[in-house]
Amino acid sequence: MDATSVTPGPKKIILDCDPGHDDAVALLLAHGNPDIELLAVTTVVGNQTLEKVTRNALAVGTIAGITGVPFAAGCDRPLVRSIETAPDIHGESGMDGPAQPEPTIELDPRHAVDLIIDTIMAHEPGTVTLVPTAGLTNIAMAVRKEPRVVERVKEVVLMGGGYHVGNWSAVAEFNIIIDPEAAHIVFNEKWPVVMVGLDLTHQALATPDVVAQIEAVGTGPARFVRELMDFFAQTYKDAQGFDYPPVHDPCAVAYVIDPTVMTTRKVPVNVELQGTLTLGMTVADFRAPAPEDCHTSVAVELDHGKFWKLVTDALVRIGEVEAK
Amino acid sequence: MDATSVTPGPKKIILDCDPGHDDAVALLLAHGNPDIELLAVTTVVGNQTLEKVTRNALAVGTIAGITGVPFAAGCDRPLVRSIETAPDIHGESGMDGPAQPEPTIELDPRHAVDLIIDTIMAHEPGTVTLVPTAGLTNIAMAVRKEPRVVERVKEVVLMGGGYHVGNWSAVAEFNIIIDPEAAHIVFNEKWPVVMVGLDLTHQALATPDVVAQIEAVGTGPARFVRELMDFFAQTYKDAQGFDYPPVHDPCAVAYVIDPTVMTTRKVPVNVELQGTLTLGMTVADFRAPAPEDCHTSVAVELDHGKFWKLVTDALVRIGEVEAK
Amino acid sequence: MDATSVTPGPKKIILDCDPGHDDAVALLLAHGNPDIELLAVTTVVGNQTLEKVTRNALAVGTIAGITGVPFAAGCDRPLVRSIETAPDIHGESGMDGPAQPEPTIELDPRHAVDLIIDTIMAHEPGTVTLVPTAGLTNIAMAVRKEPRVVERVKEVVLMGGGYHVGNWSAVAEFNIIIDPEAAHIVFNEKWPVVMVGLDLTHQALATPDVVAQIEAVGTGPARFVRELMDFFAQTYKDAQGFDYPPVHDPCAVAYVIDPTVMTTRKVPVNVELQGTLTLGMTVADFRAPAPEDCHTSVAVELDHGKFWKLVTDALVRIGEVEAK
Amino acid sequence: MDATSVTPGPKKIILDCDPGHDDAVALLLAHGNPDIELLAVTTVVGNQTLEKVTRNALAVGTIAGITGVPFAAGCDRPLVRSIETAPDIHGESGMDGPAQPEPTIELDPRHAVDLIIDTIMAHEPGTVTLVPTAGLTNIAMAVRKEPRVVERVKEVVLMGGGYHVGNWSAVAEFNIIIDPEAAHIVFNEKWPVVMVGLDLTHQALATPDVVAQIEAVGTGPARFVRELMDFFAQTYKDAQGFDYPPVHDPCAVAYVIDPTVMTTRKVPVNVELQGTLTLGMTVADFRAPAPEDCHTSVAVELDHGKFWKLVTDALVRIGEVEAK
Repeated sequence: MDATSVTPGPKKIILDCDPGHDDAVALLLAHGNPDIELLAVTTVVGNQTLEKVTRNALAVGTIAGITGVPFAAGCDRPLVRSIETAPDIHGESGMDGPAQPEPTIELDPRHAVDLIIDTIMAHEPGTVTLVPTAGLTNIAMAVRKEPRVVERVKEVVLMGGGYHVGNWSAVAEFNIIIDPEAAHIVFNEKWPVVMVGLDLTHQALATPDVVAQIEAVGTGPARFVRELMDFFAQTYKDAQGFDYPPVHDPCAVAYVIDPTVMTTRKVPVNVELQGTLTLGMTVADFRAPAPEDCHTSVAVELDHGKFWKLVTDALVRIGEVEAK
Repeated sequence: MDATSVTPGPKKIILDCDPGHDDAVALLLAHGNPDIELLAVTTVVGNQTLEKVTRNALAVGTIAGITGVPFAAGCDRPLVRSIETAPDIHGESGMDGPAQPEPTIELDPRHAVDLIIDTIMAHEPGTVTLVPTAGLTNIAMAVRKEPRVVERVKEVVLMGGGYHVGNWSAVAEFNIIIDPEAAHIVFNEKWPVVMVGLDLTHQALATPDVVAQIEAVGTGPARFVRELMDFFAQTYKDAQGFDYPPVHDPCAVAYVIDPTVMTTRKVPVNVELQGTLTLGMTVADFRAPAPEDCHTSVAVELDHGKFWKLVTDALVRIGEVEAK
Repeated sequence: MDATSVTPGPKKIILDCDPGHDDAVALLLAHGNPDIELLAVTTVVGNQTLEKVTRNALAVGTIAGITGVPFAAGCDRPLVRSIETAPDIHGESGMDGPAQPEPTIELDPRHAVDLIIDTIMAHEPGTVTLVPTAGLTNIAMAVRKEPRVVERVKEVVLMGGGYHVGNWSAVAEFNIIIDPEAAHIVFNEKWPVVMVGLDLTHQALATPDVVAQIEAVGTGPARFVRELMDFFAQTYKDAQGFDYPPVHDPCAVAYVIDPTVMTTRKVPVNVELQGTLTLGMTVADFRAPAPEDCHTSVAVELDHGKFWKLVTDALVRIGEVEAK
Repeated sequence: MDATSVTPGPKKIILDCDPGHDDAVALLLAHGNPDIELLAVTTVVGNQTLEKVTRNALAVGTIAGITGVPFAAGCDRPLVRSIETAPDIHGESGMDGPAQPEPTIELDPRHAVDLIIDTIMAHEPGTVTLVPTAGLTNIAMAVRKEPRVVERVKEVVLMGGGYHVGNWSAVAEFNIIIDPEAAHIVFNEKWPVVMVGLDLTHQALATPDVVAQIEAVGTGPARFVRELMDFFAQTYKDAQGFDYPPVHDPCAVAYVIDPTVMTTRKVPVNVELQGTLTLGMTVADFRAPAPEDCHTSVAVELDHGKFWKLVTDALVRIGEVEAK
């Protein structure tokens, strides 16, 4: 349960995402960082429909020059609730802004749920980290279909929720509230869960300095990120009044790369399924020290410079990508 | 959407069950009736743990002499809620009473959810009827994993719920309340759903006449059913004050064989997920005539004689089964 | 706790109402029947705003020639929920149809809650029956303000709810769902509660025979009732598809006059406060015989002829009323 | 709606409380501060039963030498929920620790709800501030019985809730969760509400310095407060792990005396009535600037020195009280 213990060699992750501007940055960071081994990329309905986010994932993979990594599509709707997407933040395509190439990566024929299960079960216990940066439908389905994944996974480092901050309601965050039952499943299994929530990600702002630093990389993928940030800045200003856009999803990947990029706190967290005002809230109980067997922790404070350096370094490492 | 239209040849069904005394009778009825083609038997946690009900299913298959039909185990817990079983009704094994043979049927390696999906997708659209007689976890998982099953299935004829009768709470029935979210998923998909609920199944009493009629068949499988009924009669008297036990699950199979064995009524039905007193209630709205596109109907009145004749006839047809 | 024990002399009642076409008939029945002593009439928001239903109550009192009975206005909104009225059933005035006289009765200056408390506390314990035919806000407020009323009241005979029938939702009735928290308070206090719900009152139809019988009385008040029924028949046909309108509220008064006018059944009843589909449902638990200390019962079957004879006889006894 | 506008002369308040150690300090502060005119003291079930907290209120009034102020008892249980008291914090008497004198103040015969209504309606509009430091049952009842109090009251300054802190659950505070429906009523009326919640009151710690400062006053009432703090310190350490006890209730009185004793922030606040984990949470929506018509604000940061000086000064001003 020591989420930060050093595993020799790169950290193996499965990225479950719904690109999404910040998912795209998360994928580029995972691909470009030498300490990450990307085992699989899976998609799920969220920022846009499954069809759109899957296309976007393939497009980002193409831009990043990712090869040899299976991409699979998963659930096209949440477990119980109706579909809710976020076009006011991510546009009609789910990744509006930059021009997107025709993807050259082919989709794996497996369902994301099966790819997740197969990948986890094919690796040594305690070696695979799940990094969900979307609604948790795929992960919840995988857990219910193959309960043994829970003890096989090293930890779940997810972008979602918030202990004192909400965005889709006063106290709930988008990734959780779009499928609260799935989130309830994920938070209640006894694997280590690190919740990289809005409390943390609202510190991961793409300030002008950051954008300049990315731009300075000077490559196609870096330009792509800059253009994503431009669009994201505008919608976040219009829809939620932010001066600079919070770039949520790569924070979860950054934590896997280097946990010292943020502080975390062990605290019991559960998901509200019934509230009228609080549906989908990730309820953290700070009243007492976390019990010994507490398996959830929350991200608290970001090292802004270190975080963005990771992103920039990954872009540098990716370099210029040849069209194939 | 005409659930009663005559398909040439026997009706193809997948029986998703948690044997369970009445599940056992349902399986025997499905196997012994010439108008049913049993495509697959899948199991799910419910009356007892997945391990126990799966063993029971294989045992019943062995007793009935079923061959060539895949049996697969499914989900070992409900989607969101904790496991709740019914030992006070079905005993510690889930099928207490008669001695059980060592199963000679081998379990299919596939997960029940995949077997359900594969079977539906492998047959012509509109030819496969789903007959769940347990909690709806497997069915809900199949729908979310492969949404196309909804339009492929002929209809879902399920034992569960009740529009005016409850057993696990004042207004909720066991199969629904143990996984209300799964039930919500199943009732809200746009396939035809026939709810064979407690309103109907509390008419399917194993009266002394019925037991005598079964006993008179004189075979091993018939004796097995008689012994199941003896145990069931006692627990239903002790736990719920019934004079004779209601044999729920074969009613759903009987409806598939011959819809005239009961009357049904078209009415919108939905599942309550939030109530303190009403969680898992199958809420039917009888206030107005059902709308044109209403895809749910509920079973109302049973032809008791015709129903039990179907069961007895199936046992006669099964005859004596040689141990292999 | 024997709700039907014979008290010598007329039965003292407080009528808490929201006239309302059927409330008007209830008031006329209470006034015209010799076995009822009307101690007070109180009003509460419901079929229309407090202002309108209070004016209507005074108008009906005037039409009936009631004197010496205090009328008091109560709560103008439900405890927790927003106001919901029923103009599609009762019209804009709350009692559309017949012309209404200018009331000659003056309103008591006390708040209905205080009038209810004062009246109960001023009479011998066990002699006053509460007859609410509206949302239960006033009654709940009285109970919370003066808890001793619970043991002082003989019984509560209320029109509201339904164990198998709803009208404002699939399973909830108007009087309960407009203030479910108040209903929860009333049903959970340990006084005898007779729920005269939709199961019963949907039998109290104003059929052509009934209307003819009322018309034959030939007085002003009878004509007033006939005209109320004409309007009510139309709205119940238009809004809920009834052939003849169910005249709910006088059923509760009729039960007080003569409990043999209907059958009742002892059964635990509680009110759902949380359900999405079942909010305000009066949940009756018929699974086992009612426990010894069960203090709630529900009305089941109406003697239609006896009921309407009570109404007609009351109109005959009221006779022609002189304007004052 | 300008809660901080200067009214000439002392601020008239009604203190609705459930003494309670910190309620006692609140009452002493209100009595001893020259800028407060205490119009009435009302009690309600909360920290202990109504009987006990009422006796405690009279005892504190006696200790403080209060005369000419009506004390009235109110509701003995919450609107909908069952009674929950806090003996682990306040002891069996509700105010364990110091010896209590036999009260010499006599209880007003009126119900607290009527005393609240009468007092508000008897004063000029906009002159009376309600200061509830307990569950909000009385206040909610007063609002529903006499809706005009809402526009007559200057503001409601209540101790209760917390926007990021809970004590009786992870996210709910005692005064709110014991009667969430009452709290919902109070927060949803359109009067100015200042929520002095745990976010603020957990700063109002009775540190050793504070206790010494109080002790130095050297009077009987000051010794009484010191002894209250001794007991409170112990239970807060044992039950909630506090080093020094948070003295909640006088914070609300202090705000009325001098709003600069704390910072506040305008923000929409509502009360969760349905959550499994969040029942009774005071949900504040900080996502955007508060709208123009926002009538709720929350206390944020306490001036610890200024606050405790107000308490000490009040004790000095009360001086030694002669037994009567």
